Amino acid sequence: MTGRLTISLDAMGGDKAPEVVVQGVQIAHTRLPHVDFLLFGNEAQLQPLLDKAPELKDCCQIRHTEFLVRGEDKPSQVLRQGRQTSMWLAVDAVARGEAAGVVSAGNTGALMAISKYVLRMLPGIDRPAIAGFFPTARGESVMLDLGANVDCDANNLVEFAVMGDVFARIVLGIEHPTVGLLNVGSEELKGNDSVRTAASILRQGNLPLSFHGFVEGNDIAGGAVDVVVSDGFTGNIALKSAEGLARLYTRFLRDAFSSSWLARIGYLLARSALIKVKLRTDPRRYNGAMFLGLNGIAVKSHGGTDAVGFANAIGVAVELVAHGFNERIKQELERLKAVEDQPAQAAAI
Amino acid sequence: MTGRLTISLDAMGGDKAPEVVVQGVQIAHTRLPHVDFLLFGNEAQLQPLLDKAPELKDCCQIRHTEFLVRGEDKPSQVLRQGRQTSMWLAVDAVARGEAAGVVSAGNTGALMAISKYVLRMLPGIDRPAIAGFFPTARGESVMLDLGANVDCDANNLVEFAVMGDVFARIVLGIEHPTVGLLNVGSEELKGNDSVRTAASILRQGNLPLSFHGFVEGNDIAGGAVDVVVSDGFTGNIALKSAEGLARLYTRFLRDAFSSSWLARIGYLLARSALIKVKLRTDPRRYNGAMFLGLNGIAVKSHGGTDAVGFANAIGVAVELVAHGFNERIKQELERLKAVEDQPAQAAAI
Repeated sequence: MTGRLTISLDAMGGDKAPEVVVQGVQIAHTRLPHVDFLLFGNEAQLQPLLDKAPELKDCCQIRHTEFLVRGEDKPSQVLRQGRQTSMWLAVDAVARGEAAGVVSAGNTGALMAISKYVLRMLPGIDRPAIAGFFPTARGESVMLDLGANVDCDANNLVEFAVMGDVFARIVLGIEHPTVGLLNVGSEELKGNDSVRTAASILRQGNLPLSFHGFVEGNDIAGGAVDVVVSDGFTGNIALKSAEGLARLYTRFLRDAFSSSWLARIGYLLARSALIKVKLRTDPRRYNGAMFLGLNGIAVKSHGGTDAVGFANAIGVAVELVAHGFNERIKQELERLKAVEDQPAQAAAI
Repeated sequence: MTGRLTISLDAMGGDKAPEVVVQGVQIAHTRLPHVDFLLFGNEAQLQPLLDKAPELKDCCQIRHTEFLVRGEDKPSQVLRQGRQTSMWLAVDAVARGEAAGVVSAGNTGALMAISKYVLRMLPGIDRPAIAGFFPTARGESVMLDLGANVDCDANNLVEFAVMGDVFARIVLGIEHPTVGLLNVGSEELKGNDSVRTAASILRQGNLPLSFHGFVEGNDIAGGAVDVVVSDGFTGNIALKSAEGLARLYTRFLRDAFSSSWLARIGYLLARSALIKVKLRTDPRRYNGAMFLGLNGIAVKSHGGTDAVGFANAIGVAVELVAHGFNERIKQELERLKAVEDQPAQAAAI
C-alpha cells in the first residue's frame, strides 16, 4: 500500500450526482491509479454505476447512507440534523484519518459549515477561505476568499494573504508570489476600512510575503499579481461576473461563426487554434475550489460540472495531499509568528 | 436657438486630453449638430486644436483656465483648492444654467465630489450613484453603483433601485424594468446585512418597481434583470473584473488567429462576422457612466477612452438632457413618496 492514498467523496452532491461522480472517478482513476476512493451515498444507486465500471472494483468502496444534503438546505439545519448525510460522513472520514482529503460537488455553505465543525481550523487561523484559480494573461492566479466569509475585517484579509501566498508557492510552484488586495482603486485612500487597514498591516513589511498593494477588478485577469485577496462577498461576485462575461463572449462567438457560410468555413480553418483558446479558458480546468485554513483537505467541485470537471477537482485534492499542503501552511504560520514576535522580543531587551 | 442645447466639457480631463476631447467633439458634432459646447481648459492648447477643426467654429466656445484636476489629486483637496480648475468650472456651468449637462474624462472621485458640492442632490435622494451599461445575452442592462459609495446601507441600496428603475425606463426604453440585488447567492439567507434588509424592503411590494430578488455575478452578463443594484465597492470590482476577462479573451483570440496560416485565412473569411462581435462588445459603446441623484446631468467618460468613446459619453449626456431625466426621477420619487405615505395615512384614518 506504499504511496497509495484515499480520497473520500460525497457521491450524492452536485446537480448530476451520483452519475457524474462515478464518471469523474473513472477519469481520475486513469490519471491517478495510486488513489483509492470511499464513495459515501446510496448503495442502491451507486452499486449499478460501479458494476458498469469494473476497472474501479479494486479502488472504490461504497459507504452506504440514505441521507443527503440538498442544494436548498440551510447550513445551520445541516449542522443540527445532517450527521448521517453523505456529505457529513465524507468529511468525517478525513477527520477520522480514513481518508486524506474529501471532494464534494454539493451545497457550498453546508460543506463549509460541516468542514469547519468536523475538521476544525488550523492553529493560528481565525477563518477559513475558499480559494480558486483564475486564468490570466500570464498563466493563472489564485484568488481568495470566494465566498466563505461575507464580512471580513482587516485581520481576516491579512490571514487570507498569508494562506494565499503559501498556496501559490505550493500549487503554482512560484517561489516568491506577489500578493494584491482587491480594491476599487490603487490610490491609498480609496476603499473601505477593512482593505485600507489590511494594506497598512501588509505594507509594514515584517510578513514573509511580497505585498504588491491594491489591485483593481481588471487586474485579476490582467495577471497583475499571483494572489488576489478579497472578502468573500466581493471575491465571489467578481469571479462570477467574469465567468458570466466569458459565457456571453463564447455565445457571441458561436453566433458569429454560424451567421454565414463564409464564417462557418472560416471557423473550420481556424478550428484547431480556437480549440486551444477553449482549452485555455475551459472552466472545467479551473474547477475545484479549495477550503483553506481547515485542519484537513476539503475541495468543493462546481455543482454543475461534468465528469471531467469532477475529475479535476479530485486531482486538486490529491495534489494538496501529496504536497503536504496543511503542513506547509502550519510551518509558514509558525515562521510568520516568529517574525511577528521578533520586534517585541527586541523591544523587551 | 430653438432646440439647441449646450454641454460643458472638462477639456483637460482624461489621459489624452485635450486632444481626445476635441476629436470627440468633432465626432459628436456630426451626430448631434444641434449641440453647442463650452470647452473649459487651457486656451493656448485648445485654440490650435479648434483651428484645425473649422467645422466646430460656430458650436464651440473656449473658457480659459490654467488650472486642472490631476488623476492623483485627492477629492478633498480639489474641493478646497480646485475652484478654478477646468473640471469645477465645467460643472459650475451646469449649476449656473449656462449648460444643460457636463462631461469629464478626469478623476472620478474629484468629479463626484465637485458635482455633489456644486449641483447638490435631488430632493429625496441621500447619496448619488454611478450607473453604467453592461452588455448581456438579451441586449444591455444598467448597473449601479459603480463606485460612488464604498459603504452602503440598505436604504441607499433601495434608493439605487428606484433610480436605476427610472433610468432603465428612460434610457433603455423598458416599460417595466426588472430590478435585481447583487449578492453571493439567490437564497434569502445569504449575503450581508445591507443586501438582506434592502431585499426585504423591496419585497414588501409597495414600491412602484418590479423587484426580481437577488442575482449573482454571472447573472449580470446573463441578462437576468434589466437593472443590477449593488454597493459601489462590489459594483466597481464586478464590472472591472468582467472587463478584464473580456480583454483577456480578446487577446487569446488574437493570439489564436495569428498562430498559423490556416487560422489567419480562417479569420479573414469570418472577419465580417467577428467584427459584429467586436462592435457588440466594444467598451467604447458602453462608455459614459452617469452620476444619478444629482440636481444636474453629469457624465463621466473613461479616462483612457479615445475620441469615439468620448463622443459616446457626450451622446449619453445629451440623451439624458433631451429626455428630461432628472424631472422624471423627481416625479418618480414623488410617486414613490405618495405610495410610501399611503399606508400611514390609511392608518391615521
